[in-house]
Amino acid sequence: MGDLSATERTRHRRLREQGRTDREVLLSVLRAGFVCHLGVVVDGDPMVVPTVYGYDDDHLYVHGSAASRSLTRGTTVCVTITHVDGLVLARSVFEHGVNYRSAMIYGVPRVLEGDEKLAALRLLTEHATPGQWDYARQPNRKELAATTILAVPLAEASVKVREGHPDDADDPHDVWAGILPLTRSWQAPLTDPQAAAHPVPPHILARTAPH
Amino acid sequence: MGDLSATERTRHRRLREQGRTDREVLLSVLRAGFVCHLGVVVDGDPMVVPTVYGYDDDHLYVHGSAASRSLTRGTTVCVTITHVDGLVLARSVFEHGVNYRSAMIYGVPRVLEGDEKLAALRLLTEHATPGQWDYARQPNRKELAATTILAVPLAEASVKVREGHPDDADDPHDVWAGILPLTRSWQAPLTDPQAAAHPVPPHILARTAPH
Repeated sequence: MGDLSATERTRHRRLREQGRTDREVLLSVLRAGFVCHLGVVVDGDPMVVPTVYGYDDDHLYVHGSAASRSLTRGTTVCVTITHVDGLVLARSVFEHGVNYRSAMIYGVPRVLEGDEKLAALRLLTEHATPGQWDYARQPNRKELAATTILAVPLAEASVKVREGHPDDADDPHDVWAGILPLTRSWQAPLTDPQAAAHPVPPHILARTAPH
Repeated sequence: MGDLSATERTRHRRLREQGRTDREVLLSVLRAGFVCHLGVVVDGDPMVVPTVYGYDDDHLYVHGSAASRSLTRGTTVCVTITHVDGLVLARSVFEHGVNYRSAMIYGVPRVLEGDEKLAALRLLTEHATPGQWDYARQPNRKELAATTILAVPLAEASVKVREGHPDDADDPHDVWAGILPLTRSWQAPLTDPQAAAHPVPPHILARTAPH
């Protein structure tokens, strides 16, 4: 597997000190979320669409229906996944910032069909909610045909992590400084009133454990 | 102010039923976050960069330094802000989805200078942390010159909201279905060890109230 390739556009220009080229960090960023921002070019202009994703060792799988009308096959997309971990409150406004983990993945997506599409949809479903693929009704032929899944190679990526306290401890403006952490957490599941006859299944209850 | 314009690209093709054209909904989406995804076109390919933003009635102000090398003046950007509110766990995999609120804003950004840049940076700082502009050291001339702030008109936007339970109550696969809510919350501030002489100021403590 090795390090991520550092091509011209994924070299870290402004934030070189934050660059993490280790693939493990990329995978940890992918693991921590399930919504990405898919960037495509439409008639020369950018379009950024939020959508769900899954992944394996070699590919990111993106639910592409929202962007499908605009996906010209053979062109590059940029998929960005960002976790906001808190505000960095420095002495100077200039040094203020955000603690975050993000991955930008560039690649030419392949539109999956048949068994490949089904396998990717399973990965995507299981990534968001482990156990759900076997619990829910799996897609029939018509539903599968109406689903677009893109496979983007995990080959060209830029991963950036900013953590820790502000960098301006030497600033003459001597005031409080620190971090305001921001966390995400699952809440107790809400049962659809029309499914009230069924208890919440264990794999859903397990999902609400802190992550 | 009135409704958002519905141009060709902001008309809601796939998610028409989720379209909300009321400007108040757009502002509520902007109010609820401080990190956006800025999409630009670089050498014909998309690039999606997470960055911080602020806004007023007429403009979105985006910290553009991370993208500045690639911003060709006079070209359109797409700024997307997304809040993920939970997983929609349906009877069928096909009807699974995400409860979310998102705004896509298209526009040709203007790079701000001088007093306009300072005023926008203040808005941006105060949006993330009310009270912080007057507490921290405001930027000097050199710092302001090293900061790039873009103003994008709040004129062409697409706002989408998905909420509530799954839509497949009539599915023959009769199992549990519902929502798994996801929330964000501020945690107690962490003081920089090098600022330990200062108590956490009241405006920071106030920020940790749930939002």
